[in-house]
Amino acid sequence: MRILGIDPGTAILGYGIIDSVGNQLKPVDYGCIRTEANTDMPSRLGILYEDLTSLIETYKPDAMAVEELFFNRNVTTAITVGQARGVVLLAGVQAKMSVFEYTPLQVKQAICGYGRADKQQVQEMVKMFLNLKVIPKPDDAADALAVSICHAHCAPILSKLSGK
Amino acid sequence: MRILGIDPGTAILGYGIIDSVGNQLKPVDYGCIRTEANTDMPSRLGILYEDLTSLIETYKPDAMAVEELFFNRNVTTAITVGQARGVVLLAGVQAKMSVFEYTPLQVKQAICGYGRADKQQVQEMVKMFLNLKVIPKPDDAADALAVSICHAHCAPILSKLSGK
Repeated sequence: MRILGIDPGTAILGYGIIDSVGNQLKPVDYGCIRTEANTDMPSRLGILYEDLTSLIETYKPDAMAVEELFFNRNVTTAITVGQARGVVLLAGVQAKMSVFEYTPLQVKQAICGYGRADKQQVQEMVKMFLNLKVIPKPDDAADALAVSICHAHCAPILSKLSGK
Repeated sequence: MRILGIDPGTAILGYGIIDSVGNQLKPVDYGCIRTEANTDMPSRLGILYEDLTSLIETYKPDAMAVEELFFNRNVTTAITVGQARGVVLLAGVQAKMSVFEYTPLQVKQAICGYGRADKQQVQEMVKMFLNLKVIPKPDDAADALAVSICHAHCAPILSKLSGK
């Protein structure tokens, strides 16, 4: 199963594509899509959508896993990230992929075994699971890979639960 | 100039299309796109995008005007509405339309002359400006028409300011 993990954002959107075969996880591609701050919002969303759609066409992932974000502070930021998420979920559903959402707590639990792991611990585990020599950069790409790995761990349980 | 006004939301998205010719405003079509609460979010966003794109193809508006919402209470609602807005702005930019955003205050000022007008006053003015026999229903469609009218009033000033 090929999984596309996404850490959504309008300025920088992290992506991480992995293959999950048996107990093995293999990195396929990871990085980020950036948009310029001085570009208007509709155009930035257009760039995210097109670059993401092109990634999906290139790698044909079976499932999309998106990080679900919580904001207790800035509602304006929540709307902006919401806009990016909307475009990401749309790209997923249009490519007829199964789309899954995971909270940061679920990602940390799946990767480190406990929900209070810090960023550094999560990144070390990402490096280990994917047999990488260094921690993937930027952070957004590492976060996206973490969501992919989380889905690789959860998918067998989810499919048992749904009786598939 | 043909204007498509949008009041964004995932459960119900209001739209209002008007023609602005000289000092005349004419209603073209208005209504709302609804999605079912028991449908998953990516599919709901897919429905909004497809129905909106189909409206744009049918009526070929020149500009899109979207209501900009503020939330001081619920951040979860802000993310959800943000997702719908993201898909709306994407549909606009993909159709190569100019996309404008107006706050509720700007809409009220443009339509009623002052920013503290209540919903009923705005709806009465929408009915009057468009020569309608009754107030458009549902509220989301009336709100979307209000944003269209706001843009019809602001567009001449905006084009003077930008030197067009």
